[in-house]
This record gives sequence, C-alpha cells and structure tokens, in this order.
Amino acid sequence: MQYYIPPISKLIEQFAKLPGIGHKTASRLAFAVIGMSESSAEEFIAAIKGVKTGICYCNVCQNLSDTAICSICSNEVRDKSTICVVEEPKDVIAFEKTREYKGLYHVLHGTMSPSDGIGPDDIKIKELINRLSDDTVKEIILATNPTVEGETTAMYISRLVKPLGVKVTRIAYGIPVGGELEYADEVTLARAIEGRREL
Amino acid sequence: MQYYIPPISKLIEQFAKLPGIGHKTASRLAFAVIGMSESSAEEFIAAIKGVKTGICYCNVCQNLSDTAICSICSNEVRDKSTICVVEEPKDVIAFEKTREYKGLYHVLHGTMSPSDGIGPDDIKIKELINRLSDDTVKEIILATNPTVEGETTAMYISRLVKPLGVKVTRIAYGIPVGGELEYADEVTLARAIEGRREL
Repeated sequence: MQYYIPPISKLIEQFAKLPGIGHKTASRLAFAVIGMSESSAEEFIAAIKGVKTGICYCNVCQNLSDTAICSICSNEVRDKSTICVVEEPKDVIAFEKTREYKGLYHVLHGTMSPSDGIGPDDIKIKELINRLSDDTVKEIILATNPTVEGETTAMYISRLVKPLGVKVTRIAYGIPVGGELEYADEVTLARAIEGRREL
Repeated sequence: MQYYIPPISKLIEQFAKLPGIGHKTASRLAFAVIGMSESSAEEFIAAIKGVKTGICYCNVCQNLSDTAICSICSNEVRDKSTICVVEEPKDVIAFEKTREYKGLYHVLHGTMSPSDGIGPDDIKIKELINRLSDDTVKEIILATNPTVEGETTAMYISRLVKPLGVKVTRIAYGIPVGGELEYADEVTLARAIEGRREL
C-alpha cells in the first residue's frame, strides 16, 4: 500500500471493502476512476449519493423503493391475495425476472439466526403479520433460502401465520433446471424424489 | 434493468462501466453500497473526489503525484543518473515492488500507436527529452510493454536519445521466473536463448 500516494491508496481501500473485490481488482478500479473524465466521476458520485438519499423501504412490503409505496405494491394488476416472502431485495428481482409470479412480496431483510443473536424482532416479520389483518391475503409463499437460517425463519413464520387461517406454502426443492443429476447433492436428490409430480 | 428502481439501476450502470465489472458484479457492488452506513458511503465519495482533485502529474517524471514533485523524484537517496521509462503509473508501482530499482522513472502515459492516431506528441516524450538537457542522466532504461506499440515507442525514444550521448537499454526478454518452458511461446523462447548469460 505504501507504494501509492494517499489519494490513490484511500480509493483502493474503499474499493477493496466491497464484496468480492481483492486488492488487485481494487487498484484496477481505482486507476479506472483516476482515468475518468471529471463529469464521469461526478456521475459516479451522484449515483452513490442517489442510493443513500433516494431510497427508502416500501411501507407495505419493505422492499427498497424510491416512493413510500413501491411500484409492485401499488400496481393494481398484481394479485393481492398472495405474498411471496423473501430474505433480500435482490430475491425480489430474481423472482420478477421469471415473469411468472404476479403476486406481492414481503422482504424480511435477513433471516433469524440465533447463533448470531438475530431474532424474529430483528427482521421484518411483524410487518408481515400486520399485512394479514384483513382477509385480502389468502396465501403466503415462503421463499427464504434453503439454508439452516432460511429454514428456521420459514418454520417460525409458518407457525405464526397458520393460526390466522392463511395458507402457507414453501417453494419447491429439487434439481435445478439444466443441472446434472450426477452433481446434485444427496439431500437435493432426496427432496426431488419426495416432491415428484405426475406427468 | 427495468427490474430495479432508478437510483439502484443508475449505480449499477456506473459500476458496470468500470473495467472487468459485468452487470452481475455491478449489481452486487451496488447492493453493497446500499447496505453501507451513511458514513462509509461518505468516505467512498470522499475517496473518489480525492483522486479527482488531489492528484496531478509530477513536474519531473509525469507520474501521478499529490505534490508538484513526486516523492521518488524528490528523494535524495535515489540514483539520479538512471531513468526507467514506463507506459503507465501502475508500471512504476510494479517496479517499486521489486525493491531492486533505485533510479528515477519517467511515465509516458501511453504508447505511440499510429493506427490509433497516437503520435509521439500525444505522450510524454518531450518531457523525457527535456530531462536530458544537463549531464545528470547517464542511462535510459526502456521498460515499455513487449507489445507492438511498446516496441515502436521504445525504438522511437531510443533513436531520439542515443544522439544525445545517453546510454539506452531495454529490459530483458525471457521466460518468466516460475513459468514453465512448455507453455512459453516461440518468440519468448527465442529471445530467452538470444539473451542467455554465462553463469
């Protein structure tokens, strides 16, 4: 690091803090910024400022939004009887890209993880339950990740929601489309057989 | 891109402009910035501003510097009789990391590339020649890249400098240390034999 003058080493440090960016990549990115025109650098700064000042959580689904109610929750065409519960905003994007799901979402912003001291009150579960107070919602699809934390969170929500008379489902486990059976792990294969459907 | 709200898609676009950053990585980086604390984002912005306002070219060697004369050129211990000529500031870092070279540098900021319309006046050759006006400099080491453009530039500078009575050398071609002969290309191997030294 001592090879770089302070303004450069500071920028390298900043890039290196980002996930998946090592020191070598960080220095390549820093030199790219150094080589940028004044106006491109201004645009870059404005974009960073933009996400820090122009983004809030949607009052309904807690997804990242630039309006108080996000465009999905305020879309009259969406099916308001179904809520797909996900861990993170990027999971919403993943489902939207399928162009198949037409219901609403709820973003938890994390998972319960007792070992890290993250309990149900630290993620947006209360906000989910509040959405079930009238009879609009008929089904909750739990789409947390198939990890220990994701399963724990799904089970916890399931136990809370079922007594309210709302149907609770979990996304299917199975082999990924395009994947090869040979490389699938045992647990996935077992779940794929368990979840088999008649053709 | 339409899946993201404008502040997010703008930041993704900005990251995706950086070299080696695809759309997927850009979106991962953007979400990392979104997840940053206010003060971390401020630091990031300050670091970008820092390289755009706090950096100039060293008056002597043309390397990036935060002072009018860079720390290498103003270092009394360095050998002022040798100048190592490189294409880019990062090449200086590469040589400094060897901790072997104790002379000075000259950064061309590019190479001559007739096919792209980049001639000798578009890079810092004039500034190099100006440094040879007194008798301090005894040797110029040409350390441009072993590419067509790098070679062309080295040849051009060599022809300009030799008549001034200054020794001109080119860094050695050969097999990289730790490399395997099997994978070296023919030209490199031929040069490695040509440049053999008695042990």
